[in-house]
Amino acid sequence: MPKAPQVSDSVAGIKGSVYSKLLHKLKTHQGEVYPFHVGDTWKSPPEGCGTDGILASDHAGLNQYTPPQGLPRLVDLVVERMRVRTGAPVERENVLVSGGATAGLMAAVGAVVGPGDEVLILAPHWPLIDGITRMFGATPVPVPVLLSAGSAEEAVAAVEAKATAKTAALYVNTPSNPTGRVLPRAWLEALVAWARRRDLWLFFDEVYEETQFEGTHTYGFPLAPERSFSLHSFSKAYGMAGQRVGFDVGPRAAMAEALKLHTHSTYSAPTASQWAAVRALEGAGDEWARASREEYRRVGTASAHALGVPPPQGSTFLFLDVAERLGPGGLAAFLEGCAEDGLFAAPGPSFGPFPTHFRICYTACPPDVVARGVSVLARRLGR
Amino acid sequence: MPKAPQVSDSVAGIKGSVYSKLLHKLKTHQGEVYPFHVGDTWKSPPEGCGTDGILASDHAGLNQYTPPQGLPRLVDLVVERMRVRTGAPVERENVLVSGGATAGLMAAVGAVVGPGDEVLILAPHWPLIDGITRMFGATPVPVPVLLSAGSAEEAVAAVEAKATAKTAALYVNTPSNPTGRVLPRAWLEALVAWARRRDLWLFFDEVYEETQFEGTHTYGFPLAPERSFSLHSFSKAYGMAGQRVGFDVGPRAAMAEALKLHTHSTYSAPTASQWAAVRALEGAGDEWARASREEYRRVGTASAHALGVPPPQGSTFLFLDVAERLGPGGLAAFLEGCAEDGLFAAPGPSFGPFPTHFRICYTACPPDVVARGVSVLARRLGR
Repeated sequence: MPKAPQVSDSVAGIKGSVYSKLLHKLKTHQGEVYPFHVGDTWKSPPEGCGTDGILASDHAGLNQYTPPQGLPRLVDLVVERMRVRTGAPVERENVLVSGGATAGLMAAVGAVVGPGDEVLILAPHWPLIDGITRMFGATPVPVPVLLSAGSAEEAVAAVEAKATAKTAALYVNTPSNPTGRVLPRAWLEALVAWARRRDLWLFFDEVYEETQFEGTHTYGFPLAPERSFSLHSFSKAYGMAGQRVGFDVGPRAAMAEALKLHTHSTYSAPTASQWAAVRALEGAGDEWARASREEYRRVGTASAHALGVPPPQGSTFLFLDVAERLGPGGLAAFLEGCAEDGLFAAPGPSFGPFPTHFRICYTACPPDVVARGVSVLARRLGR
Repeated sequence: MPKAPQVSDSVAGIKGSVYSKLLHKLKTHQGEVYPFHVGDTWKSPPEGCGTDGILASDHAGLNQYTPPQGLPRLVDLVVERMRVRTGAPVERENVLVSGGATAGLMAAVGAVVGPGDEVLILAPHWPLIDGITRMFGATPVPVPVLLSAGSAEEAVAAVEAKATAKTAALYVNTPSNPTGRVLPRAWLEALVAWARRRDLWLFFDEVYEETQFEGTHTYGFPLAPERSFSLHSFSKAYGMAGQRVGFDVGPRAAMAEALKLHTHSTYSAPTASQWAAVRALEGAGDEWARASREEYRRVGTASAHALGVPPPQGSTFLFLDVAERLGPGGLAAFLEGCAEDGLFAAPGPSFGPFPTHFRICYTACPPDVVARGVSVLARRLGR
């Protein structure tokens, strides 16, 4: 029992900010700064999807709570969107409008994962899934497969090798943060079939659904609607990170539990942000997503070329191995050197067991700034 | 282990919405509706504190994340506000800008409470503290003292009677939701001294700090800064519920843990909402809070008079015992009858062991609407 001043054991195991140690340099750096450590976009959201476009005079109750599940109009639009895009028989009871995909994933994980459970996480992985799993007393088990596996069979063998009787769920993120990889449909189908045999829950982190550079995104939810949560983000899809709004889709009974957790941690997503999300789904988002995808593809491909790595397939990141450039100070010294050039990157260990990698986001700044930052980095890498 | 489709045990124990069963009547009712079940205000926020007053052209990064702790300017203003109001040596490391006080309380509770712990909750209590405690595998223990205890000694005796070796924390909310009671400073001092002897954490839910009708609010944090969290709300203080922003103050080491939990559930509070909160603390909020307090006092007193109960001392609620009016259908039938008159109230069991009480919020509608709704209720009560 954590008598004062002791803190909770499970929370003590959660990592804090991965960036904080170098960020003082960001403020004091002389010259251009390249904040590639943040996963965000430099672009403004679609016309009318900023909160300043949502007027109290047009929307009664703009400064009041909404129902915890979300504005009815937004819930309806999510239902329609998911039916059209996935073909799955999504109903209102399958949907939760979240205060951002982070809040949505927290609610989904907490709904079905508890103390003693293990959650398999395809790695390298989005940093916060580790801490979200720990929040509920469960153990995150990274499965380092995204940099190495070459086939669906290898991917299944990798998760099978890490599975135990305590395994409760599998987390899959495609397009992937941080690798930029897109998992082929055959992989998803094989992983789903495996999860079904083991009676596991599935978390499909689909926040980069709009940022796949070839072909179209394979939605996870319809592959196993009885055991899948899909997590969606207006931040990533439409440049609305400051608005804090996303949505979850999942099995009806489990979503009732996720709604409880969301009610007890967010209550309702911000009201103006939900109206902005309505606009995005009513059509304002589509052309923005198309144009952004094209820009991100161009910038990502050029950045990869300059850095001598394969072009990304999706998301907004490159994940680079710099083992051969590390001296006795290791990755920390390397990233500190980058910070002296005004360039900030996220260290590999935030994404799993990757002590010689780091991640850059090539959409955090306008393309010309990214190009200059990438040149700075290429020089450091001798590429 | 909750193999699909089983959900998490601890979440299954959390109550869902307390209002849902009657709400369909709210939409279909012919005639004026009195939604007194919601804890909110009908008033628009202070000038410029709506999100539509915060323009992207004035604020770089309005659609992007802020640091998880909060906008630096807002953190500074909270530090200043808390130093001036409490005299405590508050520093930036003691502060977290939360995505609403619900998110802030979740982060504080999770930081220091874990599986097997018990949390004492002065009751009747804010409904969600029950579920927040369960989220982290702990057990909420209501201490029904706010309707009955007449002295600080009685209050201490009541918590002592419910304390066990598993007790980790005490939750105190003053001014109180739902009772409208204000705990005298002597009570708070006695409870703090008792908590200190037992080495307990303290959660001071101070979201109604601006809504105390006589004297000034006694802040809990300075009474035991080594073990106290104080939770604050822009929703309640300045009518900004739709904006989802609040703040926590607590001991430095524990706040580092709360920040982690907040990062993993909200990431950062909505950006435009944080700028609106800056405006409120820079001065726009003060006159609004003063005028609202005066209005709330007037409406609360008149409502209490019409209903034959003592006037409220603070917050925005009346908590009524209707034991003598209940028939075989109990409270549910009574509240259903009210709903047929267009009047909605929150049932007593949401607030602890109070099967014959219900709560009304007298600030959810303009004063004239409240007056008409109160008349409807008074007739039903034969008062």
